[in-house]
Amino acid sequence: MKRYEALADDVARSIRAGLLRPGARLPSVRQASAARKLSPATIFQAYYLLEAQGLIESRARSGYYVTQAALALPPEPETASRPDGESREVDVSELVFEVLQSAMQRDIVPLGSAFMSPAAFPLDRIGRAVATAALHLDPWSTVDDLTPGNAALRRQIALRYLIDGMDISADEIVVTNGALEALNLCIAAVTQPGDAVVVESPCFYACLQSLERNGLRAIEVPTHPRDGIDLDALETAIARHAPRACWLMPTFHNPLGCTMPEERKRALVELLARHGIPLVEDDVYADLHYGPRRALPAKAFDREGLVMHCSSFSKSLAPGYRIGWVAAGRRAQDIARRKLTSTLNTNVPMQIALARYLERGGFDRHLRRLRSTLAQQQASYAAAIAAAFPPGTRVTRPAGGYFLWLELPEGVDALQLQRRASKLGISIAPGPMFSASRGFGNCLRLNCGHPLDARIAAALRELGTLAASTA
Amino acid sequence: MKRYEALADDVARSIRAGLLRPGARLPSVRQASAARKLSPATIFQAYYLLEAQGLIESRARSGYYVTQAALALPPEPETASRPDGESREVDVSELVFEVLQSAMQRDIVPLGSAFMSPAAFPLDRIGRAVATAALHLDPWSTVDDLTPGNAALRRQIALRYLIDGMDISADEIVVTNGALEALNLCIAAVTQPGDAVVVESPCFYACLQSLERNGLRAIEVPTHPRDGIDLDALETAIARHAPRACWLMPTFHNPLGCTMPEERKRALVELLARHGIPLVEDDVYADLHYGPRRALPAKAFDREGLVMHCSSFSKSLAPGYRIGWVAAGRRAQDIARRKLTSTLNTNVPMQIALARYLERGGFDRHLRRLRSTLAQQQASYAAAIAAAFPPGTRVTRPAGGYFLWLELPEGVDALQLQRRASKLGISIAPGPMFSASRGFGNCLRLNCGHPLDARIAAALRELGTLAASTA
Repeated sequence: MKRYEALADDVARSIRAGLLRPGARLPSVRQASAARKLSPATIFQAYYLLEAQGLIESRARSGYYVTQAALALPPEPETASRPDGESREVDVSELVFEVLQSAMQRDIVPLGSAFMSPAAFPLDRIGRAVATAALHLDPWSTVDDLTPGNAALRRQIALRYLIDGMDISADEIVVTNGALEALNLCIAAVTQPGDAVVVESPCFYACLQSLERNGLRAIEVPTHPRDGIDLDALETAIARHAPRACWLMPTFHNPLGCTMPEERKRALVELLARHGIPLVEDDVYADLHYGPRRALPAKAFDREGLVMHCSSFSKSLAPGYRIGWVAAGRRAQDIARRKLTSTLNTNVPMQIALARYLERGGFDRHLRRLRSTLAQQQASYAAAIAAAFPPGTRVTRPAGGYFLWLELPEGVDALQLQRRASKLGISIAPGPMFSASRGFGNCLRLNCGHPLDARIAAALRELGTLAASTA
Repeated sequence: MKRYEALADDVARSIRAGLLRPGARLPSVRQASAARKLSPATIFQAYYLLEAQGLIESRARSGYYVTQAALALPPEPETASRPDGESREVDVSELVFEVLQSAMQRDIVPLGSAFMSPAAFPLDRIGRAVATAALHLDPWSTVDDLTPGNAALRRQIALRYLIDGMDISADEIVVTNGALEALNLCIAAVTQPGDAVVVESPCFYACLQSLERNGLRAIEVPTHPRDGIDLDALETAIARHAPRACWLMPTFHNPLGCTMPEERKRALVELLARHGIPLVEDDVYADLHYGPRRALPAKAFDREGLVMHCSSFSKSLAPGYRIGWVAAGRRAQDIARRKLTSTLNTNVPMQIALARYLERGGFDRHLRRLRSTLAQQQASYAAAIAAAFPPGTRVTRPAGGYFLWLELPEGVDALQLQRRASKLGISIAPGPMFSASRGFGNCLRLNCGHPLDARIAAALRELGTLAASTA
């Protein structure tokens, strides 16, 4: 954990413990810097994060104060999951499709959706870049930009790694149809049907669906809703099951929102390297950090080329354009060849358009706006949930992304809640979608990527009432 | 075989047998119609096809004459392949990539390429459609147009089936990242690793690569370079190996160029239906027919929903845009779900743009021009090959597409020829790329989808000289 994150954590704990009451003034940046022996920049970063989380607010020329809403926020889940440690065949795809199908109309309240509001993206600017690319397309680019993909786009992606201090060659990057294709190519490249793969507990349902489709077994490893996968438990699972790969989301995990502190990411990579186990790293939400800087991915600590870092522009810039990539380390050529024999190539004009957009600048400006929007939405959703849901409900407070994970009181059946909410035109993502062992029966993932308008506020109240009556 | 095709075949045989000499005048349409008891339209269609093949030419107000080039054309291969009838693991991908890699630069003469000249496509008009779609994108379309895909595009595709007399519901159509993704989704949906799949001999290398990647065994079935797969041999293979699927190209086969007559397509579908074997039909070249009408696919005779008809716009309209589809019959939902869990979706603005282009009209006008270009190119390549290659060389004369298949004299080693040609900056596709058993050692596929300019003419002469010296 970074120093500023640790400090923000301290302050948040003090607020929840009642030591800092709503309306109380925080030490000034200078005072705190002197008292804590931390640089003013670190204090500022911590306050920035707390502000994004809705716990404090700055008042002009006066300082930082605990918000009125701070104490109203529901408590966070505090304990890691406890899967049974077995490796098992996966059979959740049918359930996942049932739930998703019911959420796929515009008039359904999209609390169960995996997509944030498409209105949050600069689709007009991207549209102009696409128009330019399409109208001036060099016919031969349709051949030149074959997989591994458009060279300018791969350079732009490599450049973004470089800004984070990561030395990733453009040659290692393969452009894909979104991150999902990258993830699927990677897991297929390092496994055979019947192999076991480590996943978090809970984990993204598309990961489980991929394992199911490829005939792979899942090993669910305990995962903490704030810090991510438990490394001791991972070591035990490796000794017991000899997994052929890990498929993890160390940053802004879906559905938990947790981010492994960088030191734990380093330890994860070293642990896997000792066993020669490849890591398929799903990092699609990294750009959506509320704090001042992007978390380094596990890939940043990879010395062996064993980490395949998969991401995309679908969550940050251009949904529906299907431009993702993988920095595939030692597997880059293998991944490119698998792509050539399965989908051949990624849409060429879109690759050119995104390269042009990135070259022109404006992406970071857009991201700053988007992050601030998402942070505010998260805070307002959390407050609305606190007001609507039964006592005992716990809610994560991720420092990025647009998902909240709710632990409802024991006895609430999230699958039943989902069916009843669906009849009211409200979608939710019940916990068992995220688990090969169908755990998390009293949990939900809620999407806070849409502005909290009256319709969604009403839906949250209805959900809370339903949850109370289901308990 | 259609009547006009049978008539064209008769005339072509008469020319080759010397009964009709270069310069000889053919019976007028009226005379032939009376003599053959065929409609004038049928005679006209036959003459149209012969003209496209470069065997006859029309002279204004005078009639049709055998061309000077007709006799100079090399003979066609006459015998079906004779694979050994075994089912075997596939291991050709490395060879295929080796060959393709050496062909992937602009300055290589693209005789081994799988792509026709990108200059042959109306990329400016498509570009305008893309620009409009991107500039007026409804943000919600990025969610609405999720797999199975944009409704307007699927309606346009269904409409094109309807024009051919086929009743395919838009609900059966799943939009994919090119035909290759469709083919791969289909074969994975109907097989398990270790299963055996029937393929033609020779067959498209991407089919072999897909079988290899999926751990499937190939059963190569004898295939005639004019009429396609041998149905008796197929029945024997079914009895012997109990294949789980067939992956075939019944129209403008790659690499042979052969098209199964419609009656044989019907018999194929009936044979497979009796055994409950699904057919994955690769039909990407169907729009590139030189004759007056598009051949019906095997899918047209499917009563059981067992035929999965895969095609795309990549060969006919918009290469590099990666818009393909499958009409998946009874498997449509399964295929859509497999796509949702592997690449999620196909680029949305491109789907909208192609739907708009198709709605506006102009596709058929473009296709007429393209077909005429390809037919002329095929004739000039065939003549150039006749002049340059050693005696005993046989060359197919497909009635569509842009590939020629050459049988060189026994003793010519196509792989050696490929390596030597590669050093001269000329790519070719040697026969063993197209066979799980590495057959066709004296065969090549040549691409005639690029205008026969001086550079390509010189390359053909060099190739012919190399072939003669290698024999």
